Amino acid sequence: MIHYLDNTATTPLCQEAIFRMTEYMKSDFGNPSSLHLLGINASVKLEKCRGEIADKLGCDKNEIYFTSCGSESNNTAIFGAVKAKRRDGNRIVTTATEHHSVLNCMEQLEKDGFEVIYLTPDEKGKISEEKIFSAVTKETILVSIMAVNNETGAVNPVECIKRAVKNAGSQALIHIDGVQAFGKTDLSPLKNGADLITVSAHKIHGPKGIGALYIKKGVRILPLILGGGQEKGLRSGTESTLLIEGFAGAASALPNQKKAAEQVAELNRYLREKLSEIDGVTVNSPDDGLPYILNFSCEGIRSETMLHHLERSGVFVSSGSACAKGEKSHVLRSMGLSDKRIDSAIRVSFSRFSTKDDIDALVSGIKDGFNKLTRSKR
Amino acid sequence: MIHYLDNTATTPLCQEAIFRMTEYMKSDFGNPSSLHLLGINASVKLEKCRGEIADKLGCDKNEIYFTSCGSESNNTAIFGAVKAKRRDGNRIVTTATEHHSVLNCMEQLEKDGFEVIYLTPDEKGKISEEKIFSAVTKETILVSIMAVNNETGAVNPVECIKRAVKNAGSQALIHIDGVQAFGKTDLSPLKNGADLITVSAHKIHGPKGIGALYIKKGVRILPLILGGGQEKGLRSGTESTLLIEGFAGAASALPNQKKAAEQVAELNRYLREKLSEIDGVTVNSPDDGLPYILNFSCEGIRSETMLHHLERSGVFVSSGSACAKGEKSHVLRSMGLSDKRIDSAIRVSFSRFSTKDDIDALVSGIKDGFNKLTRSKR
Repeated sequence: MIHYLDNTATTPLCQEAIFRMTEYMKSDFGNPSSLHLLGINASVKLEKCRGEIADKLGCDKNEIYFTSCGSESNNTAIFGAVKAKRRDGNRIVTTATEHHSVLNCMEQLEKDGFEVIYLTPDEKGKISEEKIFSAVTKETILVSIMAVNNETGAVNPVECIKRAVKNAGSQALIHIDGVQAFGKTDLSPLKNGADLITVSAHKIHGPKGIGALYIKKGVRILPLILGGGQEKGLRSGTESTLLIEGFAGAASALPNQKKAAEQVAELNRYLREKLSEIDGVTVNSPDDGLPYILNFSCEGIRSETMLHHLERSGVFVSSGSACAKGEKSHVLRSMGLSDKRIDSAIRVSFSRFSTKDDIDALVSGIKDGFNKLTRSKR
Repeated sequence: MIHYLDNTATTPLCQEAIFRMTEYMKSDFGNPSSLHLLGINASVKLEKCRGEIADKLGCDKNEIYFTSCGSESNNTAIFGAVKAKRRDGNRIVTTATEHHSVLNCMEQLEKDGFEVIYLTPDEKGKISEEKIFSAVTKETILVSIMAVNNETGAVNPVECIKRAVKNAGSQALIHIDGVQAFGKTDLSPLKNGADLITVSAHKIHGPKGIGALYIKKGVRILPLILGGGQEKGLRSGTESTLLIEGFAGAASALPNQKKAAEQVAELNRYLREKLSEIDGVTVNSPDDGLPYILNFSCEGIRSETMLHHLERSGVFVSSGSACAKGEKSHVLRSMGLSDKRIDSAIRVSFSRFSTKDDIDALVSGIKDGFNKLTRSKR
């Protein structure tokens, strides 16, 4: 029996994604750029998929650009925006809690001479409105802040960025890494005022290897990958038709967001309640975070030790993010947590398919872990 | 009945690729970067696939880096090599017949101040050894030449690049765009001496949206997409596990290269013979080109008119490359062909699944086209 509680790292394919990819493989193979009927058919299907994903994000289908993953979307948004805006200023605002596909771009831009401001979160991982407002200046050309943190579930006040930019009289583009938020909370650009939003399929039960970038109508950025001019010149390369079909299948299958979140919030509450009964557990996630993610530390037990202990009873969780294999979490560190708490942190992440059974297995595994893995009984 | 003769644009999935992807979808979903068992399982499968593709290219598995497509591989190779070598010189050698995913990078590099030499082909589309030797100088930092041209099938003498670089006393990296050559001719780096080779799955009956870059052991280039450090830091982003499985399935299913090429060469000869009987047809491809591609012009009939005429009888061909929708072919132009010949060019491209029937349907369609589409009888 598998209790998969690592849905922030990746999710199992949903039946709808599998079904649509299976059907697609049976018959279709045209190159959407080919002028003949097979090409046109492929192109028509592609555009239908684009529309399905746009519907879920709450934007026009012509504002969706396919990429190969969230990382590529983030790189495209950041480098593309900076290249387009470099004459307007030199300052970029981001946070210390971003994903490495944002942070490593920022590091490169610092080397290239840009001034990058890294906002730090409070002790629960959240970036404050005040910090955003005071960081954005007239010379700022890009603000890139994630909607939901992938390690703690902290929800950032991204809706205030637009006001901060306006207040400062800045022309900055607004980029939101929405990878963890998409399908789980309202990420509509109408609401958050973003110019650029990153989303990824494999966090919503779609396939790995496909992502998209929302680019607001009228916003100009420069492409990262040059070539045949696909995706209106902003992302060259033959379109990944099969995965796009799977992405659209997964997006269409997303349930009512509020209902799903309520259901997951109940699991989250249940887990918190159970954890509060275990001596040595400290919750690192904020109380008002995305319910899909719960980060906590198990005093005295290294994350990886606990992770492997849990996996023996079929419970799969994460220590930090899957993308930073083995490294000390930069997110928890930026929250000012002690090394002890960072080194013993466990990230549990739910999906709409998670159950109370999964949590019971997890809690029993953790209790058992405390018994077996700590030398002295408490 | 479909007669698909546009295999240079893209190929239908082979049964092996479909089977392996279908199986993969049923059970596997781990993130190869996750530390737990599901992650490890995904990682083990990924490495097996890497080995299967390396075997077909004739290199070590650790020299294969997955990307999202041929275009991304070309961009990574070119920008990555130039960034790593920029202190060694300012000169880049390429050809006027490259794919747009190479040419557009070169255009960008020219804007950035690099000197780019575009070698021109002979009237059959081939680049001469002499031109390569005289273009490569000590200050050259990159030579990027395609193994096989995608519009004409012209085979370039890429094996001589290594000698040209050595002769010039240059430290230049050698990049070969092998997208059309992979699986169809010997692209082994041991033979051609390349440091970087681009390959793509969807030209060998694998899925669209997955490619690879061969990077010779010890060669250093800089990454295009930054982030979680996947692919040894050279290509961040969660690996596209499903498509990698399909890519490996397609690579493993590649038949004996020589046998397949002989079989296709017979089809090519048969088509040439039939075409020679049609008044108004001129072959644009070289006699010693890759047999999988045959480019010819139909006097007085615009490419697209003929293409759509043929599609009515289920015959699918291309006018120029699928990636340059509607544009006048830069390849045929560089060969010095007249506008008349360029505007009436048709590209036929075979796969190992092509048959004489396909050719008979094509030839009958072309004859019919000449009768119906030209105003005056000849």
